[in-house]
Amino acid sequence: MSQISVVMGSMSDWPTVKAACQILDEFGVDYDKQVISAHRMPDEMFAFAKGAVARGTKVIIACAGGAAHLPGMIAANTPLPVVGIPGQTKALGGLDSLLSIVQMPAGIPVATTAIGVAGAKNAALLALQILGINDTKIQQGIVDYRQQMHDRAVESGAHLD
Amino acid sequence: MSQISVVMGSMSDWPTVKAACQILDEFGVDYDKQVISAHRMPDEMFAFAKGAVARGTKVIIACAGGAAHLPGMIAANTPLPVVGIPGQTKALGGLDSLLSIVQMPAGIPVATTAIGVAGAKNAALLALQILGINDTKIQQGIVDYRQQMHDRAVESGAHLD
Amino acid sequence: MSQISVVMGSMSDWPTVKAACQILDEFGVDYDKQVISAHRMPDEMFAFAKGAVARGTKVIIACAGGAAHLPGMIAANTPLPVVGIPGQTKALGGLDSLLSIVQMPAGIPVATTAIGVAGAKNAALLALQILGINDTKIQQGIVDYRQQMHDRAVESGAHLD
Amino acid sequence: MSQISVVMGSMSDWPTVKAACQILDEFGVDYDKQVISAHRMPDEMFAFAKGAVARGTKVIIACAGGAAHLPGMIAANTPLPVVGIPGQTKALGGLDSLLSIVQMPAGIPVATTAIGVAGAKNAALLALQILGINDTKIQQGIVDYRQQMHDRAVESGAHLD
Amino acid sequence: MSQISVVMGSMSDWPTVKAACQILDEFGVDYDKQVISAHRMPDEMFAFAKGAVARGTKVIIACAGGAAHLPGMIAANTPLPVVGIPGQTKALGGLDSLLSIVQMPAGIPVATTAIGVAGAKNAALLALQILGINDTKIQQGIVDYRQQMHDRAVESGAHLD
Amino acid sequence: MSQISVVMGSMSDWPTVKAACQILDEFGVDYDKQVISAHRMPDEMFAFAKGAVARGTKVIIACAGGAAHLPGMIAANTPLPVVGIPGQTKALGGLDSLLSIVQMPAGIPVATTAIGVAGAKNAALLALQILGINDTKIQQGIVDYRQQMHDRAVESGAHLD
Amino acid sequence: MSQISVVMGSMSDWPTVKAACQILDEFGVDYDKQVISAHRMPDEMFAFAKGAVARGTKVIIACAGGAAHLPGMIAANTPLPVVGIPGQTKALGGLDSLLSIVQMPAGIPVATTAIGVAGAKNAALLALQILGINDTKIQQGIVDYRQQMHDRAVESGAHLD
Amino acid sequence: MSQISVVMGSMSDWPTVKAACQILDEFGVDYDKQVISAHRMPDEMFAFAKGAVARGTKVIIACAGGAAHLPGMIAANTPLPVVGIPGQTKALGGLDSLLSIVQMPAGIPVATTAIGVAGAKNAALLALQILGINDTKIQQGIVDYRQQMHDRAVESGAHLD
Repeated sequence: MSQISVVMGSMSDWPTVKAACQILDEFGVDYDKQVISAHRMPDEMFAFAKGAVARGTKVIIACAGGAAHLPGMIAANTPLPVVGIPGQTKALGGLDSLLSIVQMPAGIPVATTAIGVAGAKNAALLALQILGINDTKIQQGIVDYRQQMHDRAVESGAHLD
Repeated sequence: MSQISVVMGSMSDWPTVKAACQILDEFGVDYDKQVISAHRMPDEMFAFAKGAVARGTKVIIACAGGAAHLPGMIAANTPLPVVGIPGQTKALGGLDSLLSIVQMPAGIPVATTAIGVAGAKNAALLALQILGINDTKIQQGIVDYRQQMHDRAVESGAHLD
Repeated sequence: MSQISVVMGSMSDWPTVKAACQILDEFGVDYDKQVISAHRMPDEMFAFAKGAVARGTKVIIACAGGAAHLPGMIAANTPLPVVGIPGQTKALGGLDSLLSIVQMPAGIPVATTAIGVAGAKNAALLALQILGINDTKIQQGIVDYRQQMHDRAVESGAHLD
Repeated sequence: MSQISVVMGSMSDWPTVKAACQILDEFGVDYDKQVISAHRMPDEMFAFAKGAVARGTKVIIACAGGAAHLPGMIAANTPLPVVGIPGQTKALGGLDSLLSIVQMPAGIPVATTAIGVAGAKNAALLALQILGINDTKIQQGIVDYRQQMHDRAVESGAHLD
Repeated sequence: MSQISVVMGSMSDWPTVKAACQILDEFGVDYDKQVISAHRMPDEMFAFAKGAVARGTKVIIACAGGAAHLPGMIAANTPLPVVGIPGQTKALGGLDSLLSIVQMPAGIPVATTAIGVAGAKNAALLALQILGINDTKIQQGIVDYRQQMHDRAVESGAHLD
Repeated sequence: MSQISVVMGSMSDWPTVKAACQILDEFGVDYDKQVISAHRMPDEMFAFAKGAVARGTKVIIACAGGAAHLPGMIAANTPLPVVGIPGQTKALGGLDSLLSIVQMPAGIPVATTAIGVAGAKNAALLALQILGINDTKIQQGIVDYRQQMHDRAVESGAHLD
Repeated sequence: MSQISVVMGSMSDWPTVKAACQILDEFGVDYDKQVISAHRMPDEMFAFAKGAVARGTKVIIACAGGAAHLPGMIAANTPLPVVGIPGQTKALGGLDSLLSIVQMPAGIPVATTAIGVAGAKNAALLALQILGINDTKIQQGIVDYRQQMHDRAVESGAHLD
Repeated sequence: MSQISVVMGSMSDWPTVKAACQILDEFGVDYDKQVISAHRMPDEMFAFAKGAVARGTKVIIACAGGAAHLPGMIAANTPLPVVGIPGQTKALGGLDSLLSIVQMPAGIPVATTAIGVAGAKNAALLALQILGINDTKIQQGIVDYRQQMHDRAVESGAHLD
């Protein structure tokens, strides 16, 4: 039973989503991951979303590109918080994905992060911050992670030539 | 049993969608209309889409605004052609609706029309043109409708002062 | 006599449009294809559009990029449904093509699909879905095609490493 | 026989186009004006464009909004210079009109001016500047017109309070 | 000690943010609310963010418009999840606010919702969904709230005339 | 003494502008070409523009990218028609160039063509069409050029495989 | 002899620019203000810019809308820092003004502020901050001004109802 | 003690920012440079900004990409003029960075330059122009630098082939 579920609309999202999984791995938090296409696997999507609470999932991370319906349609079928990652797209850069995910109507939010890999990393961190509210070890992990980011950022400045 | 089903994501789409219904009325083609929110009524949406063929529906018209998932999610659940109308929106003018509807992934098309009322009218006409392929009376109706538009356009030029 | 006509504004659209033709090939539905430039071959364009019904065409697919007038101008000259594919463009990614095709005035719809190759595939599928209304074999073909997409999507998830 | 032809896609463009006509009136240059809808009057549009040289027209001004095909399709059917005015639109402000008019493919230019009323005024002035190449009275008129604009601009600064 | 903190960049955000507070009121969940300007009250902003965990806050909701730095800068100073509401803006509709809030660099996520009032409502619901992970009463409240939305949406369809 | 002057804001525009010059070469129309930077050579720019009529120039073609002031500032200093080519740009694709050139205030038009190479070709053709008004040989050249484009377009369709 | 010169492209910018002047008035810093149209008064513009150093001006503030060439062309003619205010526009909200002002080529910067009134206020404050580098009274004025903004912001929070 | 401080949000901005430093080097003006991440080093950022006046800094140049908060948050903590460089970004080209930096609320300006390397060069030149107000040697340096740019631009035209 994993606390975080990571889903993506197609295998083409995996290079993006992998960045989220690597952070979850670093934190040692259990998660499951799968491809669920909103448009090609709608029934699995609904079953996945409706069963999430019962499976013990606490946060869902969903990535999709273009008319990216996956995060919003999962959100419509679960009371759990859903984090949406807009995939970068070839034609419009990901502006389409971003607007399709973030502009949800009143009632069903999707916690949207940045377009592409940065957004994938942040989706993982956001999920962890959410779990961290009631898990001081994870929250401390976030604090430590930031301290490391901080130290690396400080140190990087030494390499300006 | 109506050949065309008209759905909208919320009552706020009705002033737009009404323009589609008026054209269907003019053509005397039976249609049913209803509010189906993709995010607030997901089960009804799926049931509606999955049952459409059996109900004898031939074309579905769906209007939604913002992260406008309704047309695409209906399309994912029926082999019938789905016409999508992007609702105009306050913040972004409807660019969000347009991209959310038109940028569907390969496999599940939505026949997208213009943003707002012009798009609603065109959705009705497109549905009629589709039916007209196998219904010479409707196809002739389109020809006549265009003749009238043509005549009105020609005549309107007389009023340039 | 083919039921579907595929046209493109120039040879540079062919790599995109080919994706539509491959799907029509898979479905074994007859189609004709040709280059018709709205701006360099306007008379051929009009003749093509005006003769479509008499030729027995049922759906027209048209691809163009930039100030993509081809789909709309064909639509203005035939009561048949016209599906428009916005070509991806170097400077603006295809936003120009998309807006030029989708923002048709009330009266003359173009059934617009996504920018680029995904849109080309979807144009073919949309044309097939339209024919499928009165052709149960094609409609069943759509159902089967989706089942295969579904199965491939499900299976693809096994390869997340 | 007028040297300038002014056309617009529909009566709704008249409040914009009127600003062009007023400038042509000021200059005392003959022009004809008419509504020609690219999509509702395609045959008239082609006949108009093809006959322009024979009618003695030297410059054509065309205004349209949304998927604004009128200027480009006229340009495709005449060797005369065509000036295009992108109409302002409710949903997208006129960005759709602008891109549909300006992004013409290599081979068929449209001389595009600004969106809306400023663009209409400039379309008239551009047409006059074009005629002015071979008409010193018109060219002097442009010089005088600019002097007046200059003087009014200079004078307006006195009213800053 | 309230679980949710609601902050806004200026009083001009209050009409938007009020929609979030009304939902929190409906749910009977304690929250505090205040104006904290990122640019006019930077020290208060940092103190607020750094003290949030110690105050017992679990989720922070922040609304800002334009170069909307408030949500991101708070997020940078607390391990708590921060929900960002992009304010609608006069010049660019809120696209500026949206991009400024959502495009956070890897490391510091902001859970971004839709532009304007819909986003404000969703920010409240998202905060509640986050708390609901460990509070079955709140999670049940979400389920009930959605049931009511569902019922109102269903019922609204009866009023299509 | 050349009838057409071609100017560009910097050498980096030359690959684009060259496409215009090649068409002018094909037509055998005399032109001069030079680099004139609006911002680095403002005095030369003004002198160039103010002297154009006296030099016998009839049409000016100007290409610039980014905050592309060159076409508009030349236009402000000559009663001759100025054709503006928006250069494609790395960050924004040329949308910046396009808006900077086309959105001229009422009074001073710039005849704007498409972004990049297509726009450069069209700028040359537009200049020729303008000269063609009073030069039947050039006008016939345009007719012939179009016939060739037409024939090539027709022929290209034979290569669809 | 005033240290700051405020110019605007036309009287229609005055309601925006006035907000800058009011701040300069508050600070008691001398400034001159005038209408200088880049396109209707190009010679005055150049004379103004070239004479600025000799007049003792230290910072120039320039506001313009649309193809807003004024700030950039002034900047090209003076070594003084030029602050550019993008005017809000009806069709495109001011995105055109912003890109025309900010996307200056390497060599000639314009210090661009936000679109519209906020940008006008900030242009004044930026000019004052620049003068404040060598004028401790003005720099202290900025510090005081911010303290007042801070206090008003803090106080405003008391009025959340 | 250097008059100009150059900061960037991360090492990935260095290739852009380097272009600014090279110009400062050419001018022989002392500057310090460092990586300060708004989100990973918020305390260092505030300390840096608050201490700038005391360190004798006169102008701060800050570069950041995406939700580019660095320039604005530094500006909020110092009365010194802050020049902001919007970094080019992969997904949206830098439109996100630009809007995040330039759309500052009334009260706290950031002097924004163009996206990317051109903007970095201009940030250096703007800082120098600001210092040049009270340093005739630097101001003369600007004049000389422009003369060289002018001469190179003039000369470049000789290479049009």
